[in-house]
Amino acid sequence: MTTLPRIGLSLGDPGGIGPEIVLKSLAGRPGLPPAHYVVFGTRRFLEREERALGLDLSVGARGGREARGTLEFRDIPAGPGAGRRGSVTAAGGQASFRYFEAAVAEARAGRLDAVVTAPISKSAWGLAGLRWKGHTEYLARFYPGAIMAFWSAPLKVALVSHHLSLRQALGRIRKGQLLDFIVALDRSLAGKGTGRFAFAVAGLNPHAGEEGLLGREEIDEVRPAVEAAGRLGIKIEGPFPPDVVFRNAVGRKGLFVIALYHDQGLIPFKLLAFETGVNISLGLPFVRTSPDHGTAFDIAGKGRADHRSMVAAIRLAAAFAAKP
Amino acid sequence: MTTLPRIGLSLGDPGGIGPEIVLKSLAGRPGLPPAHYVVFGTRRFLEREERALGLDLSVGARGGREARGTLEFRDIPAGPGAGRRGSVTAAGGQASFRYFEAAVAEARAGRLDAVVTAPISKSAWGLAGLRWKGHTEYLARFYPGAIMAFWSAPLKVALVSHHLSLRQALGRIRKGQLLDFIVALDRSLAGKGTGRFAFAVAGLNPHAGEEGLLGREEIDEVRPAVEAAGRLGIKIEGPFPPDVVFRNAVGRKGLFVIALYHDQGLIPFKLLAFETGVNISLGLPFVRTSPDHGTAFDIAGKGRADHRSMVAAIRLAAAFAAKP
Repeated sequence: MTTLPRIGLSLGDPGGIGPEIVLKSLAGRPGLPPAHYVVFGTRRFLEREERALGLDLSVGARGGREARGTLEFRDIPAGPGAGRRGSVTAAGGQASFRYFEAAVAEARAGRLDAVVTAPISKSAWGLAGLRWKGHTEYLARFYPGAIMAFWSAPLKVALVSHHLSLRQALGRIRKGQLLDFIVALDRSLAGKGTGRFAFAVAGLNPHAGEEGLLGREEIDEVRPAVEAAGRLGIKIEGPFPPDVVFRNAVGRKGLFVIALYHDQGLIPFKLLAFETGVNISLGLPFVRTSPDHGTAFDIAGKGRADHRSMVAAIRLAAAFAAKP
Repeated sequence: MTTLPRIGLSLGDPGGIGPEIVLKSLAGRPGLPPAHYVVFGTRRFLEREERALGLDLSVGARGGREARGTLEFRDIPAGPGAGRRGSVTAAGGQASFRYFEAAVAEARAGRLDAVVTAPISKSAWGLAGLRWKGHTEYLARFYPGAIMAFWSAPLKVALVSHHLSLRQALGRIRKGQLLDFIVALDRSLAGKGTGRFAFAVAGLNPHAGEEGLLGREEIDEVRPAVEAAGRLGIKIEGPFPPDVVFRNAVGRKGLFVIALYHDQGLIPFKLLAFETGVNISLGLPFVRTSPDHGTAFDIAGKGRADHRSMVAAIRLAAAFAAKP
């Protein structure tokens, strides 16, 4: 039993689809990997979904199938109005932050191997006066090298920068920082239950700069970083023309594409893997995953939320957290 | 008969797959639209492919099916070595330029409604001492407002800029120029045999700038241009988050996405439409299309070239050239 991974699940914004997709996932359809699951949220929001959907929590805790794991609950209070469905509220933002904060605290204390986060609303966090844009930024407070990556069967992408203007992102393309990024990414993937990865690096400019005719970043910054990483034994190639590298990576299981800015990586990822993609934070002592969609306030409480991406996020967390 | 469109076909670099895909297309499998076709190239290169592939030109000219159109040939001389398959040569570059130049001259004189160009090698044009990077840049000499766009059944994209470094492309995002671009694009699509289009404009920054938090170009430049275009009666919306707009546009027949830089548009386009995509130059008095792939020197002369994109380019040219 003790070799099962311990996975925290934060409920996300209670006004969105978070409680619904957490419940649908934990209600055991389709089957989740065996693990000790710990849910961080306000219990009554989950119970409301149980009644509405006619589902109940079935992971191990009920039915006595201990080999499949257990389910614990951390009942975290929420302020008035936090559960109002379909709206951005300060109370919902505050509650979703507290769920996540508590999960991260347990992970930092070594009591969780992974944290899976249902969607929060960045606007609600703003209304609540929180100074982090989202999960990744909060994690970066403790782990400045946190890496935002996206995982799906057809395509895996890691982002060198994320929530910056494109102009600022351009300024971050420096060989030293790129090399640090590549080394951190390689380390955070090595020795996991997911196998070893090779990396393909996208260029910054059209046609990867066409030997300097369309920009010099490939020559001055990207190529030196790729070559230095190669000398460290990392399996890496590039820079490749951005409009070719993603297409060529599709379906190559052991390959991660390194995207130099947010949309370069997320345009192809969302095109290929919108329903089942997983957002994953690497470079932390534990793994954090989340579904690749938002709070979907417009369909909250209607029973129509698709929980496939949440299940994929939980499965990926379990794969990363598995002790080899 | 006189209502059939007149379509020029330039043979592309004779060392690449151009002659093969032109021949395969004109050999009538699958059927091309009825038109008067005029081929610009060196006749012996096409005859070599006829012998190698056991195909022969069958559009109207042979078999007497005049209603399907006719086939003419402009036999343009090529220097020694131009036909050497599989290599970038100055002679091949020069020959492919002459084919294109001749086709454009006839189109400019009003004797062609459309020009379809088989692939040239930009490196070969460079070796030949030509000062244009490619077809689009040559056309821009006569038509400075030429627009590079990409057409497929699932997705249609127009590029605000193309062969510039990303840093230079950022500098081109100005409301006045954007408005001119939108108006020219709308005009060049209106009144054609292809129906009327609406436009969705991508933002520049992650999440389309998130109300200025991640960059101000959307507020200062893109939105004013979109609003001004709307006041002119153009059906246009945006700016939308770049990682959402392409995904949402997939399959919407009457929609063109306006991409603010080369890779923003070509990453999703090549992912969705690599085999059958068509490159189209708009904003000219005639239409110019080409397959969305290169010379493929590595498979030249092997009979393995896929001519589906070339056929799609010819069909699209015919649709644009059709007199309503």
